[in-house]
Amino acid sequence: MRITWLLGQLRFNRQGLIPAVIQDARSKRVLTLCYLNRQALTRSLAEGKVYVFRRSQNRLMLKGETSGHIQRIRQVHVDCEGKSLLFLVQQQVAGCHAGYFSCYFRRLGARGTLVVRERRVFNPKAVYR
Amino acid sequence: MRITWLLGQLRFNRQGLIPAVIQDARSKRVLTLCYLNRQALTRSLAEGKVYVFRRSQNRLMLKGETSGHIQRIRQVHVDCEGKSLLFLVQQQVAGCHAGYFSCYFRRLGARGTLVVRERRVFNPKAVYR
Repeated sequence: MRITWLLGQLRFNRQGLIPAVIQDARSKRVLTLCYLNRQALTRSLAEGKVYVFRRSQNRLMLKGETSGHIQRIRQVHVDCEGKSLLFLVQQQVAGCHAGYFSCYFRRLGARGTLVVRERRVFNPKAVYR
Repeated sequence: MRITWLLGQLRFNRQGLIPAVIQDARSKRVLTLCYLNRQALTRSLAEGKVYVFRRSQNRLMLKGETSGHIQRIRQVHVDCEGKSLLFLVQQQVAGCHAGYFSCYFRRLGARGTLVVRERRVFNPKAVYR
């Protein structure tokens, strides 16, 4: 794949990152928003699994490397300005480290509070020791 | 709505912005990724329409203010860390200024090039004069 050409189409920010929306290919639910640098994108495309650049640890990380809840890439889309990506993925188990399928498990309710409307898929304490 | 409480749950970046994934409520297609400051979020929730903070013009902008292609907010979700939002919206006409329903109208093909797989919904030259 001509990764060099693709990288040239994208506009990474000053920190060398580009945001990627991760959407479950089957349910179409939005799972999370993550950030990739050039190296993370290159490796994601080479392996077909989402790698991110974790700023807090300053390193490349396979999404799900601890939990095994990896995201297999089915489609990659680029926005009109080359400033963000959209990955359609096959999510293993769940996408959120809090134990929910999507990181967006809290919804703003009519009273202005955040309401959890879904069940946990796994127990984080058992998965992340 | 207790907007002050909600704002306190969110982690705006150093520029005072938080990213929001915009998803069409009916088709579940991801339309775009935009950025809101506190004022844009407050107004979006008050009016039920997406306002963004346009950095290049340093001002608040109603999504679709020129084209009329506004986004009516149906659901608001907050991610597990309070670092991003997900809006499910009812999109008028199309979400992308390039004339497509979604800003992610280009897909990465097997040869490593970006392929447009959908039709334009409107002619940008006729809409943005």
